[in-house]
Amino acid sequence: MTYNTLLWQVEQGVLTLTLNRPANMNAFTVEMADELVDAFQRASRDDAVRCIVVTGSGKAFCAGMDLSIPGNVFGLDESLQPTMDDMQRRLEDPDIHRGVRDTGGRVTLAIFACTKPVIGAINGAAVGIGATMTLAMDFRLASEKARIGFVFGKLGIVPEACSSWFLPRIVGIQTALEWTYSADILDAQTAKDGGLVKAVYAPDQLLPEAYKLAHRFVDGKSPVAIALTRQMMYRNSAQPHPLEAHRVDSLAMFYTSIQDGKEGVKSFLEKRPAEFKGSTNSMPPFFPW
Amino acid sequence: MTYNTLLWQVEQGVLTLTLNRPANMNAFTVEMADELVDAFQRASRDDAVRCIVVTGSGKAFCAGMDLSIPGNVFGLDESLQPTMDDMQRRLEDPDIHRGVRDTGGRVTLAIFACTKPVIGAINGAAVGIGATMTLAMDFRLASEKARIGFVFGKLGIVPEACSSWFLPRIVGIQTALEWTYSADILDAQTAKDGGLVKAVYAPDQLLPEAYKLAHRFVDGKSPVAIALTRQMMYRNSAQPHPLEAHRVDSLAMFYTSIQDGKEGVKSFLEKRPAEFKGSTNSMPPFFPW
Amino acid sequence: MTYNTLLWQVEQGVLTLTLNRPANMNAFTVEMADELVDAFQRASRDDAVRCIVVTGSGKAFCAGMDLSIPGNVFGLDESLQPTMDDMQRRLEDPDIHRGVRDTGGRVTLAIFACTKPVIGAINGAAVGIGATMTLAMDFRLASEKARIGFVFGKLGIVPEACSSWFLPRIVGIQTALEWTYSADILDAQTAKDGGLVKAVYAPDQLLPEAYKLAHRFVDGKSPVAIALTRQMMYRNSAQPHPLEAHRVDSLAMFYTSIQDGKEGVKSFLEKRPAEFKGSTNSMPPFFPW
Repeated sequence: MTYNTLLWQVEQGVLTLTLNRPANMNAFTVEMADELVDAFQRASRDDAVRCIVVTGSGKAFCAGMDLSIPGNVFGLDESLQPTMDDMQRRLEDPDIHRGVRDTGGRVTLAIFACTKPVIGAINGAAVGIGATMTLAMDFRLASEKARIGFVFGKLGIVPEACSSWFLPRIVGIQTALEWTYSADILDAQTAKDGGLVKAVYAPDQLLPEAYKLAHRFVDGKSPVAIALTRQMMYRNSAQPHPLEAHRVDSLAMFYTSIQDGKEGVKSFLEKRPAEFKGSTNSMPPFFPW
Repeated sequence: MTYNTLLWQVEQGVLTLTLNRPANMNAFTVEMADELVDAFQRASRDDAVRCIVVTGSGKAFCAGMDLSIPGNVFGLDESLQPTMDDMQRRLEDPDIHRGVRDTGGRVTLAIFACTKPVIGAINGAAVGIGATMTLAMDFRLASEKARIGFVFGKLGIVPEACSSWFLPRIVGIQTALEWTYSADILDAQTAKDGGLVKAVYAPDQLLPEAYKLAHRFVDGKSPVAIALTRQMMYRNSAQPHPLEAHRVDSLAMFYTSIQDGKEGVKSFLEKRPAEFKGSTNSMPPFFPW
Repeated sequence: MTYNTLLWQVEQGVLTLTLNRPANMNAFTVEMADELVDAFQRASRDDAVRCIVVTGSGKAFCAGMDLSIPGNVFGLDESLQPTMDDMQRRLEDPDIHRGVRDTGGRVTLAIFACTKPVIGAINGAAVGIGATMTLAMDFRLASEKARIGFVFGKLGIVPEACSSWFLPRIVGIQTALEWTYSADILDAQTAKDGGLVKAVYAPDQLLPEAYKLAHRFVDGKSPVAIALTRQMMYRNSAQPHPLEAHRVDSLAMFYTSIQDGKEGVKSFLEKRPAEFKGSTNSMPPFFPW
């Protein structure tokens, strides 16, 4: 795959997606957003990709929206006056899609829908959308040089990219409010203490550790089971009653049991590694529910 | 009570429910599922039971689904092709109930509906359904010998028993994904560090500590207030707005205030222990809402 | 502002709201509830108020419902027999509003709806409604002398004031159940260890630290962006899918971008402090959604 703002490299089942505008600290553009959406959709369909690591080229992870491009952030058509009704009924209308919908949210919704585990390897500054995009990733590992900032409040704007859905889930409501109200820049250890980051590593250990983590999810695992687990964990836990999880669980157990589950149990009883044949290109018929 | 796969013992208001197939590491069977559902329903109605401790007989807590029984796990009717619509409309139809519904989920939904606090005392291996069934319990205490594994992914199947509803609530989404993607076996300390287990004890201290915890919830407490508190905490917190909690709170305060609450305040003002008369067999009329 | 049960003092953008019945350990009355509701609504509208600190006068924070006032708590009309249907359709009917609705919940819903950050500075005993009212505040700081108790269970009543919505969000379900089942009085360190309290300070440092925290949210921040962030974090995170957050994010980004966001980006590019002009009295048209 060739992108203008991203590098796409697959090795041993792990896709490394590198934000690649190093001269601009990998600052976010609409083109990068469109390419990220495409890349996560493509990764979902590509059987060679079993896990995704996202990192930045050069010193930064992503320094936020590129404010140097005129009209990149703002230049909105103020006559639009969008309403909640527009957002509920017209989300795909071109006017709304291009003129109103939050660009960062289009990216995090694509990450959310992905069928593969996603690991953020935060190698340096991750600010604004550079911070919020990592919240839709399953794990955040940080270099000691990482600096993370939900800086929206001091720019007069709000945390976006569905971060208000993800951040309180990850760090709790008290810390989520502190970090977004204050707009502080957090160092890696503070981010770890707050539960945002899973672990902090020396800069040269960050990617090796990310790959080590990735292989725990790839080696000997069923891609279909992992894809289902990912959606179940996020979506079932947000339901008002466990009965809703039970409906999904029952279907997911039924269909995996008659597919990869047969090999899984057989290999377990025969004390040999499983050889799963399932593909995320042929998910059970109820998926996505 | 006599069960084939469980022991039922009540002492000083605390029911000990022991998974009792020690020759098979208390592996889970459909019979055990049916007996657990019955036991939790019975405990809800039994005024002599004020709190429940669940543990395992012998060395294990529960080693997961018994794979040695042919047709126990699989042997599903593949022609059924169940849909989400089936799960929404036909959950109690015999075809769906026996042929599709997740057995572990039937158990955890029974634990969820129970009117008494439930403490898991994990004495040894708790794997697969042996791990996920503890998630619907209010507390997990572990012996130093406990080993806990959400091993589904390496069997080609998915975490079940509503675990995708419970696990992210207990340990957060980042840890829930790590443990289920990796299918690792966790030792007791790792489970405690992740927030799954409340405390780790020497093997011979596990049950005494479980009973000590149980008595903090039994002695001097109103069973009706405790039963309401249990459902309110789980169900209100999963609502989209605190106003939904307020509706339930208002009714629960109204009805407890004209029942056990009178004795509670009176005894408090008279500086004597309360003698509550309420029973979970006569819950307020709005329960379960 | 003059209240009978509260002190209202504004200094440098920070409102200190002091529960002020020190001879009664600031015990809660219906009058105090009504005044708190009024004060939080007033603070939402008052541009001079940018952040709110709530504390208690004298030794206590709030010792709970004042049981010494006959009919304050109980004396309910038992013939009412309210139903869930009443709570869904008739919440504002005078019979229900005065005779059934939980008084503490009226207060916490007013705190929840507030457009300013709220910091609880727990200076001493915070028991019953004195504990649960702090859960709707964004942060809880505690004096070493604070004692916090969710004591409802031993009075035969239930945790109220929407605490079943807030408490599991703040401390997790396992701890929420322990503290409410046991009705224990927690010291400040235990409350901090459980995640309830953000930090513990020497008594004379409590208010200075609360003001220091408040100013991190006031100085150089957009009040409109902060007000939106507050509602987004609580309400979006409780939605079943991040797409619901995306709808709100998009509108919030659109309207802040054409208002305070212009000054925010301009001041950032010009490397000078921002001068935001927005007011919570003219929130974007979609608010509250």
